[in-house]
Amino acid sequence: MQALARRSVIIGGNGALGKKVVEVFRDSWEVTSVDFKSNSLAHKNLVLPQGSTELHHSFCKENLSGKYDAMICVAGGWVGGNIANPEIFAQTRQMIEINLYPSLLTCHLATSFLNENGLIILTGAASVFKDVTPGNLAYGLAKTAVHSLALNMATQESIPNTSVVSTILPEIIDTPSNRAAMPDANFSTWCDPIAIAGLIKMWAEGNNRPSNGSFAVLKSINGSIVPEFV
Amino acid sequence: MQALARRSVIIGGNGALGKKVVEVFRDSWEVTSVDFKSNSLAHKNLVLPQGSTELHHSFCKENLSGKYDAMICVAGGWVGGNIANPEIFAQTRQMIEINLYPSLLTCHLATSFLNENGLIILTGAASVFKDVTPGNLAYGLAKTAVHSLALNMATQESIPNTSVVSTILPEIIDTPSNRAAMPDANFSTWCDPIAIAGLIKMWAEGNNRPSNGSFAVLKSINGSIVPEFV
Repeated sequence: MQALARRSVIIGGNGALGKKVVEVFRDSWEVTSVDFKSNSLAHKNLVLPQGSTELHHSFCKENLSGKYDAMICVAGGWVGGNIANPEIFAQTRQMIEINLYPSLLTCHLATSFLNENGLIILTGAASVFKDVTPGNLAYGLAKTAVHSLALNMATQESIPNTSVVSTILPEIIDTPSNRAAMPDANFSTWCDPIAIAGLIKMWAEGNNRPSNGSFAVLKSINGSIVPEFV
Repeated sequence: MQALARRSVIIGGNGALGKKVVEVFRDSWEVTSVDFKSNSLAHKNLVLPQGSTELHHSFCKENLSGKYDAMICVAGGWVGGNIANPEIFAQTRQMIEINLYPSLLTCHLATSFLNENGLIILTGAASVFKDVTPGNLAYGLAKTAVHSLALNMATQESIPNTSVVSTILPEIIDTPSNRAAMPDANFSTWCDPIAIAGLIKMWAEGNNRPSNGSFAVLKSINGSIVPEFV
């Protein structure tokens, strides 16, 4: 059996997109999934304790070892609501918790564990990158902070200067929960998570890898995910 | 005595900049200061209970009444530290708490209380607007979210479409704490908070008011604050 020379950490490895990333990477990569539930397809699972991100980062630091060639954050979530909504404060807190903190955790861990020529993938949002989103304000604020984090990480402060930080900006991903939320939509234009995982794997293996600091809107064209760099 | 026809809410009215805004506005404006401590120069004080922003917004909604012509957020704070710092999670939480939530509170209250032709002022940061700030990452993420909030508010969703949202981007403000932190700096180039307050008052009174969605870097030139729109 071929040794698994390349090593990956998938933050959010048990989510809708994360599961597919684990599935696609596991054939030729060592895969460590970091999530609140374990993913049986991963070679190793870090099942995060309930509690603060401060706790998560010490837990991960204790349980990771050596260097990793790709650290991929595919954790995230969405909520709607505008500034007039009295829930806007709780929504903002939740969106920052589930979108910004996993990204921050990924980047912080990269300062200790990212290999030379390593890849960091963060997950932003095409809608937020392109325009304001007052109808889902909390989501927009949190994803904007993720985009800002990506730009800061692209300075390569505290990570190898041979590494690359790239941010995917998915349009709608074809997940069970999105299908349930939008049953009348045309699913054929949605992004297949397996195809997204394939694109990330290509980049992770150093093939056709975009430059450091790039942002790629992911479009589904003829069933294939095509990055549109913005 | 002249009636105080114009009404203002100053969020962070007992901070270093907030105190000066209250002082400058109080001669011809009704001033309500919102802060954790009362400001004796304000006509009315909302002393926020310790606790969540959710609590703050209900408290403010109960204690404000009528319409206000200017709602000004001058609350905020700074911390240094990069992505490798294990404190980055706590720092981000703190920066979001003291920079983003007061801005969000101001904007949320504006959806109920902002008058026609009213002005919302948010406080961003020139350094963050112009470039990445990996050395003070948490601050940069939080202020970026404030800038994003400002862009969303400029759509005027849920506030009068005759209102204006403008964001000030101060360079270093001449406050006692900044002097203590940087004792060897050239204070003459720093922004005088009384002068900043004067500029905001001019805009609030409808004189020489910048357009909705504007961002103004505040520069100190010949002792006067000059906005550089960016």
